[in-house]
Amino acid sequence: MEVFTNQEQYLAALRDRGTLPEGFSTAVQELEFFPSERRTPQPMKMRLTLIEAEEPLSAFAGVFTRNAFPGHPVTIGRDLLSEEKVSGVIINNRISNVRCEKGRETALAITGRLREIRGRKHPYFPSSTGIIGWKLPEKDILENLAPLADKLEGGNILAAARSIMTTDAFPKIRSIELGEGRICAIAKGAGMIEPNMATMLVFILTDLDVSREDLRDLFPRIIDGTFNKISVDSDQSTSDTALIFSSARKSCPSVEAFRDGLWKVCSQLAEDVVRNGEGTSHVIRVTVEGAGDDAEAAELGKNLINSPLTKAAVFGNDPNVGRFIQAMGDYYGNRDIVVDPESVTLELGGETIYRNGFFTLDEEKEVKLSNYMKDCSFINSEGFPPHGRSVDLNITLKRGTGRSTVLGSDLTYEYVRENADYRT
Amino acid sequence: MEVFTNQEQYLAALRDRGTLPEGFSTAVQELEFFPSERRTPQPMKMRLTLIEAEEPLSAFAGVFTRNAFPGHPVTIGRDLLSEEKVSGVIINNRISNVRCEKGRETALAITGRLREIRGRKHPYFPSSTGIIGWKLPEKDILENLAPLADKLEGGNILAAARSIMTTDAFPKIRSIELGEGRICAIAKGAGMIEPNMATMLVFILTDLDVSREDLRDLFPRIIDGTFNKISVDSDQSTSDTALIFSSARKSCPSVEAFRDGLWKVCSQLAEDVVRNGEGTSHVIRVTVEGAGDDAEAAELGKNLINSPLTKAAVFGNDPNVGRFIQAMGDYYGNRDIVVDPESVTLELGGETIYRNGFFTLDEEKEVKLSNYMKDCSFINSEGFPPHGRSVDLNITLKRGTGRSTVLGSDLTYEYVRENADYRT
Repeated sequence: MEVFTNQEQYLAALRDRGTLPEGFSTAVQELEFFPSERRTPQPMKMRLTLIEAEEPLSAFAGVFTRNAFPGHPVTIGRDLLSEEKVSGVIINNRISNVRCEKGRETALAITGRLREIRGRKHPYFPSSTGIIGWKLPEKDILENLAPLADKLEGGNILAAARSIMTTDAFPKIRSIELGEGRICAIAKGAGMIEPNMATMLVFILTDLDVSREDLRDLFPRIIDGTFNKISVDSDQSTSDTALIFSSARKSCPSVEAFRDGLWKVCSQLAEDVVRNGEGTSHVIRVTVEGAGDDAEAAELGKNLINSPLTKAAVFGNDPNVGRFIQAMGDYYGNRDIVVDPESVTLELGGETIYRNGFFTLDEEKEVKLSNYMKDCSFINSEGFPPHGRSVDLNITLKRGTGRSTVLGSDLTYEYVRENADYRT
Repeated sequence: MEVFTNQEQYLAALRDRGTLPEGFSTAVQELEFFPSERRTPQPMKMRLTLIEAEEPLSAFAGVFTRNAFPGHPVTIGRDLLSEEKVSGVIINNRISNVRCEKGRETALAITGRLREIRGRKHPYFPSSTGIIGWKLPEKDILENLAPLADKLEGGNILAAARSIMTTDAFPKIRSIELGEGRICAIAKGAGMIEPNMATMLVFILTDLDVSREDLRDLFPRIIDGTFNKISVDSDQSTSDTALIFSSARKSCPSVEAFRDGLWKVCSQLAEDVVRNGEGTSHVIRVTVEGAGDDAEAAELGKNLINSPLTKAAVFGNDPNVGRFIQAMGDYYGNRDIVVDPESVTLELGGETIYRNGFFTLDEEKEVKLSNYMKDCSFINSEGFPPHGRSVDLNITLKRGTGRSTVLGSDLTYEYVRENADYRT
């Protein structure tokens, strides 16, 4: 992973990655509002982000949260998947518009007014992220749509990538060139990133000519293999959304090449999301091999990276490797699956810590493992992002050929601080 | 819940509760050792606790962790359930003897030597709690068995209740009088308290004459209804053990009366364990009614009290009630269960926060709820334990008649601190 010595270098790299594929424009607009649910001395700030296709497009796909109480933008977005063509997406941060009275009407009022302003026949997706349960400041948003639309421009996606952020520490962009065209993707995500649809919001633009049918076939599988394999906490948001739009301006070398490129972009962006997780000071990478099947491997890995005890130990650079075995045993025990303890091997940072049924620990190894974990910490690390290292745990079982790698984060004071009063 | 203005008052109350049922003795012994896995400048301390039946007894029962990689004392304990009679249990804190080479042999060497010293034909249960993966200091323990046995005495269980503690902030004893006899129970538990067999170690003594068959029938169900309904984090230990022993010295009024008394003792002790959870500053009590069945109600409640985002918000006295809906939606969505959002009602501290499909929040209610949560915090509270209040969330569904109440704790800096390097 590329590392930058300061924030300006990082932003310069993002700008390089952020060249918009042909046929798309973006705009951002900040507004101030007073929420109706809390008396605040100062107005709160919200940013609107518009991503628009210059011509309405038919090649688009979406994957949404599995949460049983999804936000209004999610239920509207699901319906929009059957539209012949769409015009783009309008995103707000700060408030997520979930289960609010008239929340559906508000979302439709915003996208409807935008269509009028832009003179568009085809709809926009609404997308909202932030506090659950509060109402969107509909009047303030409506007033800001015309100024937002006035700012539409092509060129670079960096401003949009920054604008969709909430508690994200830095913006996230990944892109790839393919033939004459490109794929460019941005994500917002920091907490509430599990277990299906890892990041709250992902928007992917391409000018490569891929059919609607191919996109709808490929996209859910790629999301499942990338964003669904990361976890910052064990919480799945009510708003998780991934949308992909193709302007079809450039010919695509092959569907396979597109699939591989999209996978790479999503995979890198998913890792960016974990490195940017709320309060993250270590990235934990668990690779499971020899599970009953791939799904079991992924679930077992997630059980490990979601264990608060494991996460807290990693934060403390404490090679408390017993907690890995505890979390594994918790997973299998709760499913009444019998695993022979002698058939399991665990490696941490390349050191064998458990084999043939027993831990293989000694003083020297403990010191080595603790130093390894310190070396993987972001704390006291320079650079931006600090570095690309992760605490690597490899688990080998003898149950089958199931294999998966999942990425998670540690549990830190900073995570607790950010989430103890997220709304102020 | 009874509250005490200082620690001495609390300990006096524990002493009152701690009168040993007839036919039992206890002893404790502290020892120092150097672990073989970490070079420590000072020796570490460990306490041995012996609970002995004056006469070998046949009325006993045990419930153990479902973790697939249980500790050696757990696998030995399961075998001992088929013994005709047993002599008692020997417990050590500090190291849990899980998956260590010769760990089984060490546990058997300790209980075997104890039998020799005490001249007993019938075995003792071994029981260990603490660090997973390290080896028990066998030689140091064996040397301390004779001094331990020399200290055996009847009277009170308080010394034993203190001796089995690890990171527990205070010892825990609950008891009840029944006819001429009594039930007296102690527990050790602070972290890794989920999802089956809530506390790591629970020992219950009674002099009431209840048959082995009745105990084996009653005990698992009572554990399931009490200790299995609490959670400090989402981790299930490799060592969770609950044992009950009857000396059968007193006649029991009825099996039903015994069952009710045992339920009460276990229920109170389970709540003590949550109030004493690692770093706990709020107890969260979730009551679910109208779920598909009781198991669903309990699972849904646990999903709420295990959500890191919910737990962190409660710590911050932030009535971020959207996170409750998020966690509920996460539970049902992951199980592909469709729940009509309009059929759900949520109350926090008696205030309706969600009804008929929408949140019902306003400025006044937000202030009231935040004050309610502050009032439930242990921080800046006097008394010991600080108070008996909890953050009460009531969920009403229209899916069936399933009902359950679960208890959990918030997520605090102190939890992270304690678990970031538990082993120093």
